[in-house]
Formats: sequence, structure tokens, C-alpha cells
Amino acid sequence: MVTAQSEVASQYNVIGTRPIRHDGVDKVTGAAQYGADLQLPGMLYGRVLRSPHAHARIVSIDTSKAAALEGVKSVITNADFPRASDDVIDTGEGSAQLNWLLDNVIASDKALYKGHAIAAVAAVDHHIAEDAIELIEVEYELLPPVLDVRDAMLDTAPKLHDGLKTGEMDGSKSDGDSNTASHLRFAKGDMEAGFADADVVIEREFVTSMAHQGYIEPHNGTAYWRADGTLDVWTSTQGSFVVRDSVAPLVQLSPSQVKVTPMEIGGGFGGKIPVYLEPLAAILSRNTGRPVQLTMNREEVLLATGPTSGTYMRVKMGAKRDGTLTAGEVYLAFEAGAYPGSPVGAGAMCALAPYDIPNQVIDGYDVVVNKPKTAAYRAPGAPQAEFATEAVINELAEQLQIDPLELRLQNAAVEGASRADGFTYGVIGNVECMQAAQDSSHWNSELAGPNQGRGVAQGFWFNIGFESSAYAQVNGDGTVPLVLGSTDIGGTRASIAMQLAETLGISAEEVRPHVVDTNSVGYTQVTGGSRTTFAGGWAAYECAMDIRRQMAERAAQIWEVDAAEVEYGDDAVIRGPADDEGNERSFGFKELAGQLAASGGHIVGRADVNKTSSGPAFATHIVDVEVDPDTGKVDVLRYTAVQDAGTAIHPAYVEGQMQGGAAQGIGMALNEEYYYDESGDLKNASLLDYRMPTALDLPMIEPIIVEVPNPGHPYGVRGVGEVPIIPPAPAIQAAIADAVGLRMNELPISPRAILEATLPEEG
Amino acid sequence: MVTAQSEVASQYNVIGTRPIRHDGVDKVTGAAQYGADLQLPGMLYGRVLRSPHAHARIVSIDTSKAAALEGVKSVITNADFPRASDDVIDTGEGSAQLNWLLDNVIASDKALYKGHAIAAVAAVDHHIAEDAIELIEVEYELLPPVLDVRDAMLDTAPKLHDGLKTGEMDGSKSDGDSNTASHLRFAKGDMEAGFADADVVIEREFVTSMAHQGYIEPHNGTAYWRADGTLDVWTSTQGSFVVRDSVAPLVQLSPSQVKVTPMEIGGGFGGKIPVYLEPLAAILSRNTGRPVQLTMNREEVLLATGPTSGTYMRVKMGAKRDGTLTAGEVYLAFEAGAYPGSPVGAGAMCALAPYDIPNQVIDGYDVVVNKPKTAAYRAPGAPQAEFATEAVINELAEQLQIDPLELRLQNAAVEGASRADGFTYGVIGNVECMQAAQDSSHWNSELAGPNQGRGVAQGFWFNIGFESSAYAQVNGDGTVPLVLGSTDIGGTRASIAMQLAETLGISAEEVRPHVVDTNSVGYTQVTGGSRTTFAGGWAAYECAMDIRRQMAERAAQIWEVDAAEVEYGDDAVIRGPADDEGNERSFGFKELAGQLAASGGHIVGRADVNKTSSGPAFATHIVDVEVDPDTGKVDVLRYTAVQDAGTAIHPAYVEGQMQGGAAQGIGMALNEEYYYDESGDLKNASLLDYRMPTALDLPMIEPIIVEVPNPGHPYGVRGVGEVPIIPPAPAIQAAIADAVGLRMNELPISPRAILEATLPEEG
Repeated sequence: MVTAQSEVASQYNVIGTRPIRHDGVDKVTGAAQYGADLQLPGMLYGRVLRSPHAHARIVSIDTSKAAALEGVKSVITNADFPRASDDVIDTGEGSAQLNWLLDNVIASDKALYKGHAIAAVAAVDHHIAEDAIELIEVEYELLPPVLDVRDAMLDTAPKLHDGLKTGEMDGSKSDGDSNTASHLRFAKGDMEAGFADADVVIEREFVTSMAHQGYIEPHNGTAYWRADGTLDVWTSTQGSFVVRDSVAPLVQLSPSQVKVTPMEIGGGFGGKIPVYLEPLAAILSRNTGRPVQLTMNREEVLLATGPTSGTYMRVKMGAKRDGTLTAGEVYLAFEAGAYPGSPVGAGAMCALAPYDIPNQVIDGYDVVVNKPKTAAYRAPGAPQAEFATEAVINELAEQLQIDPLELRLQNAAVEGASRADGFTYGVIGNVECMQAAQDSSHWNSELAGPNQGRGVAQGFWFNIGFESSAYAQVNGDGTVPLVLGSTDIGGTRASIAMQLAETLGISAEEVRPHVVDTNSVGYTQVTGGSRTTFAGGWAAYECAMDIRRQMAERAAQIWEVDAAEVEYGDDAVIRGPADDEGNERSFGFKELAGQLAASGGHIVGRADVNKTSSGPAFATHIVDVEVDPDTGKVDVLRYTAVQDAGTAIHPAYVEGQMQGGAAQGIGMALNEEYYYDESGDLKNASLLDYRMPTALDLPMIEPIIVEVPNPGHPYGVRGVGEVPIIPPAPAIQAAIADAVGLRMNELPISPRAILEATLPEEG
Repeated sequence: MVTAQSEVASQYNVIGTRPIRHDGVDKVTGAAQYGADLQLPGMLYGRVLRSPHAHARIVSIDTSKAAALEGVKSVITNADFPRASDDVIDTGEGSAQLNWLLDNVIASDKALYKGHAIAAVAAVDHHIAEDAIELIEVEYELLPPVLDVRDAMLDTAPKLHDGLKTGEMDGSKSDGDSNTASHLRFAKGDMEAGFADADVVIEREFVTSMAHQGYIEPHNGTAYWRADGTLDVWTSTQGSFVVRDSVAPLVQLSPSQVKVTPMEIGGGFGGKIPVYLEPLAAILSRNTGRPVQLTMNREEVLLATGPTSGTYMRVKMGAKRDGTLTAGEVYLAFEAGAYPGSPVGAGAMCALAPYDIPNQVIDGYDVVVNKPKTAAYRAPGAPQAEFATEAVINELAEQLQIDPLELRLQNAAVEGASRADGFTYGVIGNVECMQAAQDSSHWNSELAGPNQGRGVAQGFWFNIGFESSAYAQVNGDGTVPLVLGSTDIGGTRASIAMQLAETLGISAEEVRPHVVDTNSVGYTQVTGGSRTTFAGGWAAYECAMDIRRQMAERAAQIWEVDAAEVEYGDDAVIRGPADDEGNERSFGFKELAGQLAASGGHIVGRADVNKTSSGPAFATHIVDVEVDPDTGKVDVLRYTAVQDAGTAIHPAYVEGQMQGGAAQGIGMALNEEYYYDESGDLKNASLLDYRMPTALDLPMIEPIIVEVPNPGHPYGVRGVGEVPIIPPAPAIQAAIADAVGLRMNELPISPRAILEATLPEEG
């Protein structure tokens, strides 16, 4: 696709161009090494025995027959994990957290969801490991499962965890045990006055299902526990340092005793941050003295990794007749899965974030249920919360007979506006996205047929910053290998390398980014939170500035002049003062690179940054749908995704993120759900039955990049990966309402749901 | 072994102690990954067809039957290598060099030694590859082999290379073709006057055999030529950057397109610097699109890798009756093997280096013969040259009736003395070694029986410097992973890490050194030349200073004081000014390390150094032998190795180098030789027949470390790996003379050689 260079990109040589990604050839030729590609001498293969029950007390586990099978080298249960002392369990917040992490990796006293790991074996091959699993005898005492957040919050509900109390933001705890692990509240203004000011008040309930990230590559983990007590881990992960810092306490090592080598990763979307197999591999390796590799099959991925929360939500919003929003009240109850820790906090931060509403209360509840422990999933919590709030905004627009984009513009948060959680915006592109949507050919087009409708919605994600590191050497031919700690899911090798190239004044191709293990690069936070191009790029910028300084010093040394007289230009020409005969002195980058070895040695640059993000992301999506009244199937006819990228470093990858995020959001909106029976058995644990949209299901997602550079970043980067998953569900919900008059407030809006809503009730 | 702390070490906390090496556990438990341990998905296995002839024109190679064998994926010959253009062969010095390198990897028009690679195959398993090799049909035209350096230098000798002329130091060339590739001369003073001053003149001829390094791990090379034209190489090597820079031009890539990952190395001693299998693996991978692994068996290692030169040498030396050396004339003719490039230059630098002789001429000749191309071997060239010169010194001592150590002390080079090659010594430990030998219990002991004798000899090696890089991060627990580019043969992870630890004020165990690929660390020269602890340690020192500076800055930031007011003490306590209430402010290293993440992020340090060595090494060895008059077998009864280490960073590893070097030198002296028949067939190409000394053959080598710190290094390091291989041969030669009156001037002094010298000639 040929795209006109943006106004922002015109300032730059590399930024804003679309070079081929550095890891592209490896990935399309099959050379890229994923976790399951790793083979080590003497390596054993592991398998995990999983609970067939959603809620059960583990009475006993007899591993003797499995252990006796020829070729089996170790069989472990939760009891095989080292503990700091016998009494750490649940004695305090930190140790409870650690025990929950460990119990999710391998159950201790209770199985809390179907698929919960109960035991693991290591054997000389996969087949023996499979056979051994069958020989483990577990006696369960079945308990009633708690499968819905509303049921779980009832006093009468069975409790998943003895001693779990509801924690409040002030640190206080509920008296009795509860499945509600915590409650948070963000508030500002005066709700009573706010609703009194309103001419129209709408209050609605919303329900969403658990949904999985649906990455193609199943989880894997290989570990080798060395005789000196250090541990090597290889895994496909979004964050090698996160794995290091997660595994270490679970196996009672210091993080510095654990080295994590990130393998290539086949999709993550947040789901490849927690550890599942790595600690099991570590203990199996400790027991056997050999490397141990564990991989999941697809069923295990769906049963036992971390989907996003199912929710129950209520939104009440008031507006004046002129469209001014006066008050917003949001109630969010999020399923955490089996252990505390849903993304309800992030959902609460985002729920009303696009709007400047004077009076707000947002309550969030983190609730345990007998389903897999949730994990991050692309803008964790925001798609649910903003589905609810955006749906109400759209319904308000309808009732007020105001164009939904106009209503949003009228109330849009702009620089200086504050959210209920206290954050005050700097320069943001909220209005610019809405305006670009208004100006789009899509918005100005007509629908063409019956049962068609159009919807629009806004999305917000805050983006994060934190630590990133970079290390780069200058080769004699002027190429620059760049060492990164950020695992590359969506093109960050390219987007970070381009910022190094821009700063040095060389081409993107001349930078050779690669991702290394935790011992070989400075601390680098997870690839997630839409932080990687922001913080990694900042580190690359600082690293390049370090190289520029040294190159200038070297030129000064060669010319025998003061370093202060030498300047490294943005055109990658290093200029010094004229010589005695008045001749200009300069070096091109490559020219000086070729002289480094002989003039004192090669040069390396390095940087470690730790930055707070100041560049939130906004998006406006427009969708046209057609509803088949006979089957309830919703076809997406046209889809436009507008998004403020700050500066779009690599526009093709920004567009890819926008398109990918929209596709996932459409999946959440129309099809994706964890479908449990009453016993807590997941009935659709395969990719045939867990229905994700494919290329055949979707039209081309038309991306419109808006660029409002982030003044808090050297190149104006905001972060682009997460916000595009947010608007699809409310936009589609509005489009369906526009098409057939149905306001569907439960996700997914599957054919079955539409048919149930349109068919007369059976009686 | 408990050893009193040295006077030098007493200044330090870490330097001079004997921590367990960081790679020790991996190596003793079998966890260390050597080149042949690597397995990659889809990997093919290669084998090499080798010439059965020492000298032959290759008339034709028919690979068709091999290529047709099921499972064979590629068969290559020299013709498969890319060339910059058709006419580069031998058009100039550089391209001749490159063609020689390539032709040694795989023969073009001629096979120049038995074992010379002719063709290579890649197949799906080892067995098919073996079978395929048998199917390659090669037609040879046999040529007369040239097997001895003296024969090779005759005008009448068959010439190995068309167009090879003798190059002189002034750049001039001989008219006719020659097997003598080059001649060098170092000279000072007036030889005529020098010999006129002498009361005694001795002139002797010496002959030494080719000898192999004898490392346990055979060569290996794995390559993967990616679809984007970049090449990954994994190999057991002494220098990952050297492999990168060697392989790249042979396969017509830029060095920056080649990434070399150094695997663990099972011994090198100089022999693991050249490339043999890596370029073959690269082209086989290019042809197949799959990774290809090649490994040698032991016979291939002995036939076709790089032993050290066989030589013919003459030394003429004059002395006054009082022992003053007046003149030295040295003639060195070194076998280069099949292509130019023997270590005769280094031999010439070292030949007379321990002595301050006013009048010197040293001639060196580099001569090609039909034997494998020589490679570096521990102090390359010096054991041969100094065998000859030290033998003459010992014989002079006998004739002059001066104690051989006294004679050496009387003529010892000291600070300010100049060699014939122009180098002037700074602070050196030449005299200190001789004196320590004089003071040793060994020297002051008595021999106990008949046929026993004692010998002594001096050794010199210049040591080198050059580029090294280091990169280190500070973990939250105060441990410091240290990234190195130097492959670790003899404990350099430890010796470099200890210098980082010393500088930071932490323990050696808290530093975690590891060796990474060429894209992940700054340019680092080969592990060899006794440079690694010197230059790598210097880089570690600079890297630690970089961390110290940043830690002090961070403390200043936390205390909100000026960085200039904060000092990082050698005790690893960071001290600032007292606070407003007069309380001292300080951080321990670990304490501050734990606060880095929260106070702005982690810290990394880095350094690249490029240093000229100013720390030559000297050694004095004493040996007692007993000669069995019936069998000619020489038993080493007692052996003492004295050596100036500069500062001994890790005394146990310094002692290990001294002992290992002595053992290799004893092997050269008594047993090791390349035994060819007249056709050029190596008759002892196995470790049963190529006789190296084992632990059973040797007494404990008693090490005496002398420490004369090198003022040209932050910690006084000189380099210790090479010099101990030099004195054994002349010391043993002298001891045999002392025992049985035989001056054996040909190495090895095997039982056969002694019997031949003692038995009456057959007539």
C-alpha cells in the first residue's frame, strides 16, 4: 500500500517509513526459533495432569505407579515446591499472593477450575509422559462450582478460598470470607447534583463473557536447574525479566540466579506474561538434573491459561438536553478466575476516560470464580468497561437526537481535563480522532440496504512506560547491532531500531536489532501496556546519543582537536573545525565507523531508561453491519479504525495493530465466549468451537492514523497496540441497534443471542 | 592447596584469591554446551572428503553419484564458493591470502597435504553423509611431495604454488618461484665485531618436528544461511569475532552479515583460531536452506588442522670468558605447511629476547611444505626458536664453566634493554624469575642417582593487548551479570570477573560472567596471545568504573545532593555529605542496588578498550631427568616452573597455566611429532600413536609465581598462558646432557632418538 507521507513523518528520515521488519525473513521462512523448537542434550519431556473438576478438594494424589513406569524420571505435585518455611501460607498479603501464584501453577489443597494443574511428570519422551499422567491416581471431594460473578458475590455462595476477605482501598478488610477479593472506587464531583442537573438519565446492565487471546503458539517452558543452583529458563514470553522475577520466588531462588532466554513468540496479547509451565519444568529439572521441556496443547491453553474477565456491569449516566454529560456512575464486577487479580482497576480507569464529566463514581469489584485465573488481554479490562459506557453514550445520543460523534465531541476530554482516578491529561488526540472519523469517507457514506446499521464508539487506553534498556555496537561497515530486552510480538524490533537509526542518521536496515537473555541486557519491562515502542524507543534514542557523543570524541581525537569543536549532525556527518589550511573536516558515519578499530577501538552505546508514560491513546471506530434476521448472524460490512498514534514510527505496523485490535474486538463483540456447563466444564475448548473471526469473516479494516505527537517522548511516541480492541464491541452494538432496533447488552452478540432476542418467548 | 597470600595480592580483596570458576559446575556436570551439542530444527549433517595424497593435481571431481544418494541434500567443492570476480586469484597480496585461506578450507586445483579437504556433503544423517563421501570420484595426478623445510628451500624442490615468490621485509620479491614465502631479518650492532670480541663461539644446528596442540574437543562448525542473506555460525572457537571476520570474505559477505555464537571450547592452544568447517557448513546451508553441522573425528584433527611448524634452525653465539655474551646469530627456517604463514616472525622476536646481547642478527624464513597449514600453538614459534638459543646458552655455560643461571643473570635483559626487533623493555621480571629459580628448593637440592641430570632454561613471550569489551548490569540483589566477548579456555570468565569485582568492591561470586555472540557485545579480539586477562580485565575495570560513577550519581539523586559530593569507596560504600542534622549518609552496594529500580531504573556499565601490551612474560624452568640407558626413555623426576605473572589475578589458574604449558613443552621435548612416511602419509594420526604426556608420565609441576606487576595495567596484569611452554624443551635437553652427556639438538628427544645417538652406527 502506498501512503502519502504524514506531516509528522516529513520531519524525519526513517521514522514514518515502512522498512521490512528485521525479523521478517526468519518468520516467513520458518527459521525463527519458538520455545518448542529448542532441543537440549539429555532433555526430558513433561506433561501435566489436570483437574477434570471445576471445584474439588484434593484428598490424595498417588504418583507411585506413574513414577514406576520405565522412562519416567520425575513426578511432582505442589508438595515438591520448596517453601521458605512451613508457615508462610496465607500469613500476609505478599505470601498469599505468592501462594496463589504457585497454586495456580500447580494446585495444593483444591482444584479451582477445570484444567487446573494437579501433577506433572518428566519422562524420556512425550509418549511415556502421556502414559505416566494416566497412571496418577487422584482422589477428589467434589465441591459446588461458582461460575458467574453475580453468583460468586452472593453471601450464600460457596467460597473458593478460606480466609479471603474483601480488601478496600484504605487497607481495611471485610469481616467474613468472601469471593470478592477487593473493591476500589474512583470518584469526583457530586453525584446527586450531577443527576439532578440531568434532563435524561439512562441506566443499563451489561454482561460479558470470558474470552481468550487466541494466540496461535501454545505455551511452552524449558528449564535446566544447574548443579550450582542456578536455573536457566527458555520460554516464549512477553517479558523475560517478568518470567525471571516470577519463577524465582516460586522455586525459592533469587532472581539473579535465574536466567531467562526469550524464544520467539507466536502471539501473546497479554496472555504470555504469567508463568504456567516454567516453574514445573524447573522443579522437574531440579529433581532429574536434566533439562525438561513442557508444552501445552490447544485444549490446555484454553482451559488453563489466562483469558480476560467475564463481567457484570451497570452504567448510569445523565445528560442535559443540549447534550452536556452531567454525571456517570459505573459499577464493574469482574471475574478474576480462580485467584484474585482481574483487570478491574484498569477498566475503572478507562471507563469514562474519553469524557470530561464533572460528577463520577466508578466502583470496581475483583471476584474469584471457578474458572481459569484471568490474565492481561490487550488493554486489560477496558474493552468490557468501555463497552458498557460507550453503549450508554450511544443510547443517550439516540434519546437526545444528537449525532453520536457530535455528542462525544461536545463532551470530549481535552488537555487539562481530569479523570476520576486523578490523572490530568496533557496533549491528547481525543478530539482529533473524533474529527477524523467525522471527516472520513466511511462516516460520510450511505448505508445500502435493509437490516444494515452503523455504529460508532470511542476508545481510551492510558499506555505505560517503565524500564527499557538498549545496547549497540558500531561495526566497521557502519552497521549497528542493537541488543534489546523487549521480546518482539508485533514489530518492536523494527520500531525500536528505527528510532536508533533516526537518531544516528543511518537507515533502518543498517540497524540489526536482536533480543537477548536476561543476563545480557539491562532490565527491561514486559512487552505490553503499549509501552515497548515508547520506552524501548526512548532507550534506543539515548543509546544513539551515547554513540553520537563517542563518535564525535573519536573524530576529535583523530583530528587532534577539542571534542567541543566537533558536532555530530542529524545527517550523520561528523564535522570538525577547518584545518590549518582552511579545509573543512568531516566524516560520514560509515567512514568514521571504518576507522574506529585502528583509531582506538570500536564504540558501543548503551542506555537504560525508566519513563512515565504521558501519552494516552484514543481511538474512534466506525462500523457498518448487516443482521440476517433468519439466522441472527451479523456481517461486518465496512470498518474504519481511527487512532491517535502520537508519531507513527512504522505506519504499516501501526495499521497492523489497529487492524488486529479491531479484529479481536469484533471477535469479542460477536462470537468469542467461554461456554461452561453447570458443572464448570468448558464445552468449547478448541479453536473449532471457540470461534474467532478469520480473514474470511472480516472486511478490510480501514485504518486512519491520526498523529498528535506526545510531547513527553523524544519522537512523540504514544503506544498503539491496545486501544484498537476497545471500540469494536460498542460500535457493533450500536450498529446492530441501528440495523434492527435491538440494544444487545450482553457479549458476545452471537447469532443465538440475536435470535433469542427477536424470537417470541417460549411459553 | 593452601598458599600464603602474595605481597601483591594483599593490596586487594578479590585479586589474588582462588574462587571457584564461574563455569566450573557446568563443565564438571556436563551441562556446558560444546559445538557438537548444538541441535537445530531441520539440521543437516556434513562430512568432508579428504585427499589421500600429500601432493596431487586435482584433475576432476565427479559428485554426481553422491548427489544422487537418497538423503543427500548438497555436495560441494571449491567451485561452489562465491567469488568477487573470476580474476581475483593471486592478482595481489590480499586476494592471494584470501584464496589460500579458501583453498585450505577446500582445495581448488591441487591437494597440498594428506587430509586436505576436497569436497563436502550435507545429508539428513551422519551415516548417509559418510556413504556419500565414498561415492565422490576424484581423479588425481600425483606430484612429488615436499616434506621437510630444508628440502623445500632447495631450488630444485618441486614448487607447491605457481607464482609464489619470496617476499622480503622491504616489499621486494624473488625473481623465480620458491617455496620460501618470505624472509625477515632483525638486526642490531656489528656482528663481525661481536664475534671478534668473543673468546668462545658455539654454532649448532637444530631440528624440530611438527607438533599438534592436542586439544580434546575436535573441531566443529554449524551454520545457517538465512533467506535474507545473513549467516549464523556456531562453533567452538578461541575468537568469535575472528571467525566472523574470517568466514565473511570466504563466502562473500560483509562481517556484519555474519553472527557467530561461540560455543564452549574444549581446548584450543592456538589451534582453534582458524576456520576449517565453518565456511563449508555455510555454503552447504546456503545450498540447502537448512542449518548444517560438521564435526571432525580425531584423525581429521591431526591430518587437517593446524599444528605448529617443524623447523630447521642454526644458532651461533659468542661470549667472553667472563660470560659476557657478545654476539648472537640465529637462522630460523619454519615450515608453514601448505600455505604461507608460519610463526617464524614471533619466533624471531623471542629467540634472544631474555638477553641483552649487543650484536644480533636473526633471520627467519617462512616455507611451504606438503603438510597441513600450521596454526598458532601456545607462544607460536617461540618454543622452537628458544629451544635453539637456550640450548646454545646452556652449552656456552658448560664450556665457560659458569653456572647456567649465573650466566643468564649476567646477561639478562632488564628495563631499558632493547631487542633486535626494536622493542625496548619497561618493567619486567626476567631477573626476578632467575633469582627465584636460584632460591628454589629444587635448584638447591641434590640429584639422587645415576643417569640423572638437571637442566634449566629461560623463556620469553611478549604478550599482546588489543580490543576487549565488557557490559554489565546491576541486579536488584547486588549481583552483576557480566557480558563478555572472550571465549573462555583457561578460566578467563573468572579472571575477568574478579577484576570487575575488585573494582566494584564486591565478591567474585557476585559477578556472573558469560560469553555471548558477536552481535551482543562490543568487538573483542581472540582469546590468545596471553591477552585475555590483560585486555578483558582492563575492560572489566573500565566497566566497573562506569558503574561506580552511575551508582554515585544515583545516590546523589536520592539524597538530592550534588554528584560531586558523593564518593564510591573501594569498600563498595557510597558516601555522601552529612544531612542537615549532621548524620552521615551512605549506601552499601547491595543496599543501593536494591533501590535502583524504584529510583530511576537499573544501571548498566560498559567499556571498550584497545590496549597495547606493555607487560612481557618471562619464565625460568628447572627439570631433573633420568635416562634409561637400555630403552632411551627419559623420565621427568622433578619439575619446577618459575614465572612472572605480573599480578596473579587467580593464582590457581596461573599455576594451572604454568603446569599445562610445562606439560605441553615436555611433550614437545620428549615425544610429540608428526611422523610422515616418504609419500607424505601421516603415520600416527591418532592419540594412541601421537604420544602426548599424561598425568602418569609427569611429576607434579611445582609452580613458583613471581609477581612483578605490569605498570601498564590497572591491576598489573601481564598474561600468563604462553611463556610456560617455552623453557621445557631446552631445560630437558640440558638435563639429558647433564645425565648422559648427549646434546640432543633435534626434537622430540624420543627413546628412539636417544638409542640411535648412543648405539654404535650400523655399518
